[in-house]
Amino acid sequence: TQQLLTESSLETSKARPCRVATADRSVRKGIMAHSLKDLLHKVRDTLMLANKPFFLVLEEDGTTVETEEYFQTLADDTVFMVLQKGQKWQPPSESTRYQL
Amino acid sequence: TQQLLTESSLETSKARPCRVATADRSVRKGIMAHSLKDLLHKVRDTLMLANKPFFLVLEEDGTTVETEEYFQTLADDTVFMVLQKGQKWQPPSESTRYQL
Repeated sequence: TQQLLTESSLETSKARPCRVATADRSVRKGIMAHSLKDLLHKVRDTLMLANKPFFLVLEEDGTTVETEEYFQTLADDTVFMVLQKGQKWQPPSESTRYQL
Repeated sequence: TQQLLTESSLETSKARPCRVATADRSVRKGIMAHSLKDLLHKVRDTLMLANKPFFLVLEEDGTTVETEEYFQTLADDTVFMVLQKGQKWQPPSESTRYQL
């Protein structure tokens, strides 16, 4: 997925820092990704999901992220959660919540 | 993933200040590091971990930092936590929390 960087695409195509948690929030990893596709590949490798199907949601509220367009609007260090078959997003428990 | 140092990448390769805490947050040290690899070496020496295996997570939320790329995106004075075998990241207790 190499591509020439033009001035206008630099902003959206440069690698951005993402944080990816497992469904039980026991593991959280920092991963750099240029795109949603890139992130999906790296999540598969980093969390050793092999060929198991999964998708990504926002850790904060379970919003499914499935388009590049939407991915590109997210802030650096957005926290994603990996959901595999049968897994469901759950709100963080009180003890691990840092919201205001 | 070697790369030539152009003017713009100099910024990311110069030594940056890091703070490194133990898993129980009883010790916190300021360490200058050029890279994740450099930081890992210095943590081993500074905290006298000898040959014990360990890894680094972000103190704020337990995100594992295992790539140079991701390390380079972190702000100066980011607080890391050293986790050795059997240790687990835990949120700071109420008394040590400084969030708004």
